[in-house]
Amino acid sequence: MFIESPRYTERFGSVRLSHVQRVIALDSGLKSELPPYGAMGVIKIEEETIKHFEDRMAVVIPVKDEKLKLFEGVVSGVPHDCLVIVISNSQRGKVDRFRMEGDALSQLCRFTIRKALIAHQKDPAIAEAAAEAGCDELLGEDGLIRDGKSEAMVVGLLMAKAAGKEYVGFVDADNYFPGAVLEYVRNYAAGFSLAQSPYSMVRILWHYKPKISGGLYFRRWGRVSETTNKYLNDLISSKTGFETEVVRTGNAGEHAMSMKLAEILPYASGYAVEPQELVSIFENFGGILPTKNLKVMEQGIDVFQIETRNPHLHEEKGEEHLSNMLLLALSTIYHSPLCGEESKQAILAELIKQEVLKEGEEPPPVRLVSPLKKVSTDKFISHIREDFDKYNVLG
Amino acid sequence: MFIESPRYTERFGSVRLSHVQRVIALDSGLKSELPPYGAMGVIKIEEETIKHFEDRMAVVIPVKDEKLKLFEGVVSGVPHDCLVIVISNSQRGKVDRFRMEGDALSQLCRFTIRKALIAHQKDPAIAEAAAEAGCDELLGEDGLIRDGKSEAMVVGLLMAKAAGKEYVGFVDADNYFPGAVLEYVRNYAAGFSLAQSPYSMVRILWHYKPKISGGLYFRRWGRVSETTNKYLNDLISSKTGFETEVVRTGNAGEHAMSMKLAEILPYASGYAVEPQELVSIFENFGGILPTKNLKVMEQGIDVFQIETRNPHLHEEKGEEHLSNMLLLALSTIYHSPLCGEESKQAILAELIKQEVLKEGEEPPPVRLVSPLKKVSTDKFISHIREDFDKYNVLG
Repeated sequence: MFIESPRYTERFGSVRLSHVQRVIALDSGLKSELPPYGAMGVIKIEEETIKHFEDRMAVVIPVKDEKLKLFEGVVSGVPHDCLVIVISNSQRGKVDRFRMEGDALSQLCRFTIRKALIAHQKDPAIAEAAAEAGCDELLGEDGLIRDGKSEAMVVGLLMAKAAGKEYVGFVDADNYFPGAVLEYVRNYAAGFSLAQSPYSMVRILWHYKPKISGGLYFRRWGRVSETTNKYLNDLISSKTGFETEVVRTGNAGEHAMSMKLAEILPYASGYAVEPQELVSIFENFGGILPTKNLKVMEQGIDVFQIETRNPHLHEEKGEEHLSNMLLLALSTIYHSPLCGEESKQAILAELIKQEVLKEGEEPPPVRLVSPLKKVSTDKFISHIREDFDKYNVLG
Repeated sequence: MFIESPRYTERFGSVRLSHVQRVIALDSGLKSELPPYGAMGVIKIEEETIKHFEDRMAVVIPVKDEKLKLFEGVVSGVPHDCLVIVISNSQRGKVDRFRMEGDALSQLCRFTIRKALIAHQKDPAIAEAAAEAGCDELLGEDGLIRDGKSEAMVVGLLMAKAAGKEYVGFVDADNYFPGAVLEYVRNYAAGFSLAQSPYSMVRILWHYKPKISGGLYFRRWGRVSETTNKYLNDLISSKTGFETEVVRTGNAGEHAMSMKLAEILPYASGYAVEPQELVSIFENFGGILPTKNLKVMEQGIDVFQIETRNPHLHEEKGEEHLSNMLLLALSTIYHSPLCGEESKQAILAELIKQEVLKEGEEPPPVRLVSPLKKVSTDKFISHIREDFDKYNVLG
């Protein structure tokens, strides 16, 4: 594939935050010759390089009662060398949708001789392993893993670690285009190949997100994303003294991390999870607040933002969740120790203006799951490993 | 990629017509091991194999006043090693859309260091070259190439031949998903890799063709395609005595041919072009009518039909053209010497039932351009070659 080289990389403490890089072409062939680091700011990512990272990557697909056709399509788009890990919170019982997902996954894996893991979010064995590892924050009052995509992501991370993967990417199960899923994962690999540090993250910016209403309307960004990005940028500007628009992927559901980075970040619940990752990176490695990870500070954190060639066409989930999404995203910034009084007031005013909060109300505190590094992931892993066959779709 | 092996291949004279093969997964990785010709009827097409055919393939994109964003997206999805040939019939003059297309193509080619050809359908030099070659049938009363996608396809074929390509594929310019275009071309390559004969054709069946009306509705087939396929199948059944449903891609706009096959087929005008290709193959090599190509008969013709993983989401052109499309498609069958009286009556009844024809009317005759083999393509080529630089986007 061909991708723009980043026009500029902002530095915030030891965080290297690259401006958006567009994908120029999906394939770069065998024959093409391009000088290293490209002509006119275009980089060619070799097929071999992409495969190198795919082979080390787990792709976590959280799913909850999604249409089976969409789920199947998404899995069929994930590059073959990646390990697919499905964390499902779908209905069981009479209509056992979890089982249907397992059957579909297993059929696809059998046809293509690939491996995959699938686990139910409410599987007591997973909750036990999490508890044993000291990861109680994931558990609800019933002793099982709490509902939520964010919790599924953390379980997926633990499984990816148990499987020995060095990179982990997230892909939503509601995508209509297998070809777009393929591109996301290839973009993850492309980003990782450009990283200088073993602590790296790739966040996807959709080229367009078509809205279906009568015809197709190709939106660039949602209003929620625009607002989230604005206040994330303000958080940086207020400390560096230079205005910036570098952050464009504050709410990026499609994103990936090196396992080394994934292990040292806390994870927020619900829609707060994606912006919180950036907030936590800024807090821990922005050079403003004291850090406990001197070694990481030395190596730095690379954050890439890649704009896809494909539009993002996904199942419409209605608009009700948008104000909740905005509220939780801005909470992560509001409650950050980096956030000054002026920014706090601006966020409150924004939330009141957008009728998400009433005068006098505050954004709710963010519920965080501690970094996996702090819990005994070894215990989780050894507990899960005994059972690993159970989750294996193909041995 | 992983693709089903054909469950069954129908033989009609020396035509080998394979049943639809589904694409199972878009990528097959570096590591995957699959016994040759697959486990459980699944074939792995190696990346190297795909690239081998892409390198020998021209991808012709006929375009007429298409949205520039869509055109750019389509080009960016064509695999890098293919030669892109754009035949444009877009507006010139004050708003020079042809020029805008050329600029967009040229920018993309410069970024990715690839070659492409672009020509205007009404370029007098092309008409001259066609005339000199004896290809008068392409010309209108004004001495220029006639309007029409089919005519653009033939010009594209001639250009592909001039460029020395061994395979030629067609891709529409109105596709919303670059990733789907990438898949079409990879499917062409996959099909060619399975061919036994140098005379081969690959036709694409869309997994779904979403219809946008309020929400998205995932249609399997349009009614026009269903009807066309039915009568193409009847044409075979009436001769073999065995009913068949093998033909599923009668109207496939997305299709590709080996140059050897492309040269010996006549091309119909307008919407008749795709079904006519099959009708001509049945007439010439079905073993019922006398053939002049004994050598080809010996080697046989391979026709593959591949069902994509991606849905096909394209610009909606309205429904008015559908009845015209049906009329022209069925004309190709109606006027074929293979078509018996009974089939003719059935087609007339169908067209009257669908209110495309009135009682007593007949489908219009099909306007055919003779096979390129019969004209002096060498003359076209030598004429065009002098000017080839003019059409070259990157030297």
